[in-house]
Amino acid sequence: MLGLMQNWPLTVDKILDHAANWHGDREIVSRSLEGPIVRQTWAQTQARAKRISNALKGLGIRVGDRVATLAWNTGRHVETWYAIMGMGAVCHTLNPRLFADQLCYIINHAEDRIIFTDVTFLPILAENRARMPTVEHFVVMTDREGMKGVTLPDALCFEDLVDQSAPDFEWGGFDENTASSLCYTSGTTGHPKGVLYSHRSNFLHTLSTLGVDVMGLSGRDTVLPVVPMFHANAWALAFSCAAAGCKLVLPGAKMDGASVHELLESEGVTFSAAVPTVWLGLLQHLRATGGKLSTLKRVVIGGSAVPEAIVRGFRDEFGVDVTHAWGMTEMSPMGTISSPTAKVAAMSADEQLRYKLKQGRPILGVEMKLVDDAGHRLPHDGTTFGRLMVKGPAISSGYFKGDGGQILDEGGFFDTGDVATIEPDGYMQITDRAKDVIKSGGEWISTIEIENIAVGHEKAAVAAVIGAYHPKWDERPLLLVQLKPGAQATLEEFLQFLEGKIAKWWMPDDVVFVDEIPLGGTGKIDKKLIRERMKDYVLPTAKVTATA
Amino acid sequence: MLGLMQNWPLTVDKILDHAANWHGDREIVSRSLEGPIVRQTWAQTQARAKRISNALKGLGIRVGDRVATLAWNTGRHVETWYAIMGMGAVCHTLNPRLFADQLCYIINHAEDRIIFTDVTFLPILAENRARMPTVEHFVVMTDREGMKGVTLPDALCFEDLVDQSAPDFEWGGFDENTASSLCYTSGTTGHPKGVLYSHRSNFLHTLSTLGVDVMGLSGRDTVLPVVPMFHANAWALAFSCAAAGCKLVLPGAKMDGASVHELLESEGVTFSAAVPTVWLGLLQHLRATGGKLSTLKRVVIGGSAVPEAIVRGFRDEFGVDVTHAWGMTEMSPMGTISSPTAKVAAMSADEQLRYKLKQGRPILGVEMKLVDDAGHRLPHDGTTFGRLMVKGPAISSGYFKGDGGQILDEGGFFDTGDVATIEPDGYMQITDRAKDVIKSGGEWISTIEIENIAVGHEKAAVAAVIGAYHPKWDERPLLLVQLKPGAQATLEEFLQFLEGKIAKWWMPDDVVFVDEIPLGGTGKIDKKLIRERMKDYVLPTAKVTATA
Repeated sequence: MLGLMQNWPLTVDKILDHAANWHGDREIVSRSLEGPIVRQTWAQTQARAKRISNALKGLGIRVGDRVATLAWNTGRHVETWYAIMGMGAVCHTLNPRLFADQLCYIINHAEDRIIFTDVTFLPILAENRARMPTVEHFVVMTDREGMKGVTLPDALCFEDLVDQSAPDFEWGGFDENTASSLCYTSGTTGHPKGVLYSHRSNFLHTLSTLGVDVMGLSGRDTVLPVVPMFHANAWALAFSCAAAGCKLVLPGAKMDGASVHELLESEGVTFSAAVPTVWLGLLQHLRATGGKLSTLKRVVIGGSAVPEAIVRGFRDEFGVDVTHAWGMTEMSPMGTISSPTAKVAAMSADEQLRYKLKQGRPILGVEMKLVDDAGHRLPHDGTTFGRLMVKGPAISSGYFKGDGGQILDEGGFFDTGDVATIEPDGYMQITDRAKDVIKSGGEWISTIEIENIAVGHEKAAVAAVIGAYHPKWDERPLLLVQLKPGAQATLEEFLQFLEGKIAKWWMPDDVVFVDEIPLGGTGKIDKKLIRERMKDYVLPTAKVTATA
Repeated sequence: MLGLMQNWPLTVDKILDHAANWHGDREIVSRSLEGPIVRQTWAQTQARAKRISNALKGLGIRVGDRVATLAWNTGRHVETWYAIMGMGAVCHTLNPRLFADQLCYIINHAEDRIIFTDVTFLPILAENRARMPTVEHFVVMTDREGMKGVTLPDALCFEDLVDQSAPDFEWGGFDENTASSLCYTSGTTGHPKGVLYSHRSNFLHTLSTLGVDVMGLSGRDTVLPVVPMFHANAWALAFSCAAAGCKLVLPGAKMDGASVHELLESEGVTFSAAVPTVWLGLLQHLRATGGKLSTLKRVVIGGSAVPEAIVRGFRDEFGVDVTHAWGMTEMSPMGTISSPTAKVAAMSADEQLRYKLKQGRPILGVEMKLVDDAGHRLPHDGTTFGRLMVKGPAISSGYFKGDGGQILDEGGFFDTGDVATIEPDGYMQITDRAKDVIKSGGEWISTIEIENIAVGHEKAAVAAVIGAYHPKWDERPLLLVQLKPGAQATLEEFLQFLEGKIAKWWMPDDVVFVDEIPLGGTGKIDKKLIRERMKDYVLPTAKVTATA
């Protein structure tokens, strides 16, 4: 027997409608690409987005077609998102930090028909125009003044499209499982793979993130998402701020400490979200200039592990609460957040820090388990390592066009590729990437944990740990150290430094000093390249055993 | 093109699973029917609920069967809810305040196969047993000790069922639109009609209510729902507290001021929800005893309009914030809530009061419009009255078994039966019931507004306004006054009292003093009976016009 409740499909256009109807005069403030700070309301945003939908229809875009954006966080980008999704087309957010080859691959793979672009990216598009045969038009997100000097053929002016298009457009009316947006993951191996969100997944994810213990946004908040809209859905903030009726402050192309600080203060921002490097930049700027944070209350940090110094810095110097979150493009992206439980909230600030530095507890709509290599569940005891598996309505069931094949286990769980522990209280901590974790005699050793300690040695500039082949234990830890310029050190110094800080059987079997530990594009240690470089290396312990 | 996101049906068992897995040691504390305060955790609640599901299966209950509860708010009631819904049966919450005739009508209409009952209700069930032919078993929500003296035939002991049933039960696995629960509205005309919730509607409604500007619950909250689980879904609190990981405090059968206060203090309650009469009782108790509210921060009030004295009393004497909410059984039930917008939050406490006394702004997932009798949209100007129409995923599309026929307009909106105004800022205020509002010369006059002012006259005990026939204006207001014992008054005294407080054309054409203004079962003025009693009355203005 079915319930007798209304059929109201969960489509994201309804989120913007809600904002326009009930928070219509709340503002979206952007640092425009042209320079000035510009202001619009949620009601205006909806009205302009509907005109863009008409423009897209006029350009032949139909339900299911891919329309790309190559843009910073601005009001025009928000309008474009809703215009594309509202009419049932798929909003493909391109990451401008990708190399041209990857960008072209993604555009072709997605078969993008139109690209909305900020003026910043006109050179790279012009240079590679011939490699994007599916693209019929480029819409330059500027006004007629900004179009002067644009030489890209097929370039249309965003503001012309707004001005010349009809105002009314009936959004929605399709299945809530219809694809709404597409975002490629920058996988470390092989080509990027497309994550295809649905209206339903975005709507549900938005509702889940609104909870007090997640983003906890209210209509009184002013939110500055530094996290880009092209990266993992901007952590849903372009949706959740519309849903909650927040004032939205968008940084455009400028995410340096001084620019972010200026907006935080001038617009009265209460909540912000970004990756650690942005916050480090802000802290450095504040310390150098003696700046204050007079309205900011909360900061959510994700993208990589949060250094303790950032949490303490914000808390002790500026009275701002830092919350650590974790997710993935494949998770829309929120998975966990380190909000305090009642038990943790009753602890002292320093005791709470231990929990704040973990990735946190799953939001409603994220099922989570740890498993061993055979797929058996592992205990949540805070020490057992396991592969982290997730399941939920806003988590990928597969990649676009079937890339990567079947990606769920028998129970429908997605493998995050991370290795983690979970405390009895539910706090999850990423301990390693599954492909990096060292499997020694059936037990797992976290390379990240050893690295984090080793890099604390006064002579170390960078430290990396990889698993090296061992005939008896399969793998044993090998520590590589790039010393600070001019420094000299011995193997014994580093082993002594680690002693007592990690379990005995975690102690590296060898320490190798290298000129350079290679870093990838995002500043993370490139272990794939290290393994490649060290492929002929043999552990001293392996030699001994081999000859024993 | 469909998105590539996981198929994860929104079924309410997943909410309790989330609580058990991630907030497993948070407590549910109940004032038991046997007397003592009893404690259990969310994990225990899930485990016991699964046993009850097995017991129900053993008693022959299948997906879609109706299983009723006649019970106060207790941990056993929560277990029973989830046990019934989790296995796909329909949880029919019976309102113990109904007369036996209505109760029997509802039980027969729903075709309930089993009734879970508190010991309180054994007499009424025993007396009317023969009138409930569909009922095969009664489960008495007590232990074996409590069963002593139970004489009802077919009575099973709740704790025996728990003890004797298997622990594992696979919940869910059905369509998310499957019916989860049934609640009859106590309509003022005709038989009660059944509202049939779905798993999807309950899940979405729960997510919406968790927002900061709605219930705003966190895992650090301790919540006391005085609002009963048998009435309008307990405002979703049995779901939302599980979702957020709140400690839940349940008052059992005792909702008087002293009993509620005792629990608020002893359990450290931070959030509570109830109808105004409960809060009046609490305020009176606190004032009489000099009691304090040391942990309570927020109170949500709904069910009927909130008197200003309650808001001020809580705010000024106890530092507790009161939020007014409005909804209906047909809306799951939350429709609006009067949380402050950024603009309102910037006002002084007394300026904010004007907004706090309104029913508030719609939550995400509730579309709302005002229409005239022809169905045309009316402006949100804060003064224009219109019929209040609503639409959303947790709003009824029809009543159980088709009672009441087609209930949605062409646009899919449900008619609330209320007349309201909406401010430009979105704050809605109920001004009257549609069947009571006076239509005078094409304009609408609020009977409630005139009554609220008239009853402020020092000689008035109760005041009621109805529309009386007028040959020129169709209807004109007639004020009926029941004077305080021993008081005497004239028509002129009351008209003078109203003058300047309402628009001139709202002034009653006559004032009639009566011995008694009849009140209905819930304490509201029974206008249907008044109209019946006054059916031969003719307005003096009507007579003049008629002979003119």
